[in-house]
Amino acid sequence: MTETILASATKEHVIGFNRPFTMIGERINPTGRKKLAEEMKQGDYSRVRADALAQVEAGAHMLDVNAGIPLADEPRILAECIQLVQDLVDVPLAIDSSIVAALEAGLAVYKGRPLLNSVTGEEERLEIVLPLVKKYDCAVIAISNDETGISTDPDVRYEVAKKIVNRASDYGIKPCDIVVDPLVMPIGALGDSGRAVFRLCHRLMTELHVNTSCGASNISFGLPNRRTLNGVFLAMASTSGMTSAIMNPLHEEDRLAVQASDVLNGKDKDCTAWIKHNRVPAPENAPETSARGGRTRRRAAS
Amino acid sequence: MTETILASATKEHVIGFNRPFTMIGERINPTGRKKLAEEMKQGDYSRVRADALAQVEAGAHMLDVNAGIPLADEPRILAECIQLVQDLVDVPLAIDSSIVAALEAGLAVYKGRPLLNSVTGEEERLEIVLPLVKKYDCAVIAISNDETGISTDPDVRYEVAKKIVNRASDYGIKPCDIVVDPLVMPIGALGDSGRAVFRLCHRLMTELHVNTSCGASNISFGLPNRRTLNGVFLAMASTSGMTSAIMNPLHEEDRLAVQASDVLNGKDKDCTAWIKHNRVPAPENAPETSARGGRTRRRAAS
Repeated sequence: MTETILASATKEHVIGFNRPFTMIGERINPTGRKKLAEEMKQGDYSRVRADALAQVEAGAHMLDVNAGIPLADEPRILAECIQLVQDLVDVPLAIDSSIVAALEAGLAVYKGRPLLNSVTGEEERLEIVLPLVKKYDCAVIAISNDETGISTDPDVRYEVAKKIVNRASDYGIKPCDIVVDPLVMPIGALGDSGRAVFRLCHRLMTELHVNTSCGASNISFGLPNRRTLNGVFLAMASTSGMTSAIMNPLHEEDRLAVQASDVLNGKDKDCTAWIKHNRVPAPENAPETSARGGRTRRRAAS
Repeated sequence: MTETILASATKEHVIGFNRPFTMIGERINPTGRKKLAEEMKQGDYSRVRADALAQVEAGAHMLDVNAGIPLADEPRILAECIQLVQDLVDVPLAIDSSIVAALEAGLAVYKGRPLLNSVTGEEERLEIVLPLVKKYDCAVIAISNDETGISTDPDVRYEVAKKIVNRASDYGIKPCDIVVDPLVMPIGALGDSGRAVFRLCHRLMTELHVNTSCGASNISFGLPNRRTLNGVFLAMASTSGMTSAIMNPLHEEDRLAVQASDVLNGKDKDCTAWIKHNRVPAPENAPETSARGGRTRRRAAS
């Protein structure tokens, strides 16, 4: 049983095949959020604080923290954000940067066991990030692309993931501490990108036995009604073996789809969480309850 | 490639693994709808007409027609309903009854190639329904229970389905004309019923190569926020190989989930249908479009 154990100073969270799907809040990320980027650059972290609280309140099990602002001192800003978010909420964090110095700065101040975001299959990246994972005894997101780019063939991406897991093993890092990102490409551009993820997640679960995560909302890029697509995608991916996603828990469609998938995958014992989150049934549902249940009764009697 | 071909007098519809998911409208069914039952009994079919038109307008590819009213002349009422629905809309129908005389009455008046709903694995039922399927050259829904009831073990239900397919073959009925209902049990009572359906659909697709259908809304019986659960269930089932469902296309959650699953399963070429159905993007999505797309760009650059 693969279990990826993450922790804050006071709280542990486990990503695993027999666990509820892990929602990692995506909001603390200045990419494409001009106002937030400007504020973070000026040392104004009020919106970071608000995003942290709101996402945890909405049910996020972890938060991703990214400080990728062009021409800014990313290592310092990322470290400051991690410290303030850890002071504010007790969920474990993903330390998210494409700059190694920023990853290091984040690791240096983090209290607990974080999820490092990320390493790829690129040689240079493997050699520099994996020693950090080992040194800080953390878990890491492994993105399934390498020097040749992102293959559209899920089986090629599987091989990249396998290479990362093997290389990590050379450093003494266990497969349970590698969370593979199968790479979600926009389905509006690549009609097969949904099936590619489903196939890849299934292989990663059944053959490589590793947990998985993704930037879920990429799937709907450029299409209308993105929230419905994102939510449905997350639920479908969960059936295929995906165990976590970096997503927006403030979007009801995403959150409800994940919580419903937990029910349907048998991971919400006695539907306790579902009933709690949806306590008041809408009055207009009442007559249908009997009509729909009737179908079972009719069939059982036939 | 398994294709179940259904037809009205003027229109063909195909259920298949490489086709969009088939939505079979469930509304024309007096079970649990007291008012409708009373009206149908009195020969007032105004609500049947309205339900037929509304469901097709909402995107139903087929309609299920059931006239199961206690102490009523079901064969006559079912035949009358089928005739009037066929006069009104051009989608193929499922003739739905637990009474063989009603199935026969429906078959006798039906124009085209209907889906007979249903046969089970019970000997008595097989011997009486399969000859009808052969005589009228139609397709049939095969419910995966037998004299022993409904097994909670999906592999036992698989064997029942296999028995029905084999028995049908003895009558010269091809597997492509058997649409197996894996039986959807309420997840509030049986926490494993979602996974049972997913496993069964996968086996039915990959081993028995048959199409599948179900009464989808049973899954959420007794739970709050049923519509979200139903929609998410349909999408997850589609990834596992389910190809059709008897459902309520008037519920936006169900309909959108099915249409989104078509996009994500690569069955909505160029997302044409999705874009058509969701033409106007909500204005509040605008800023997020860029934020979310940004994640891809950042990663692609890392």
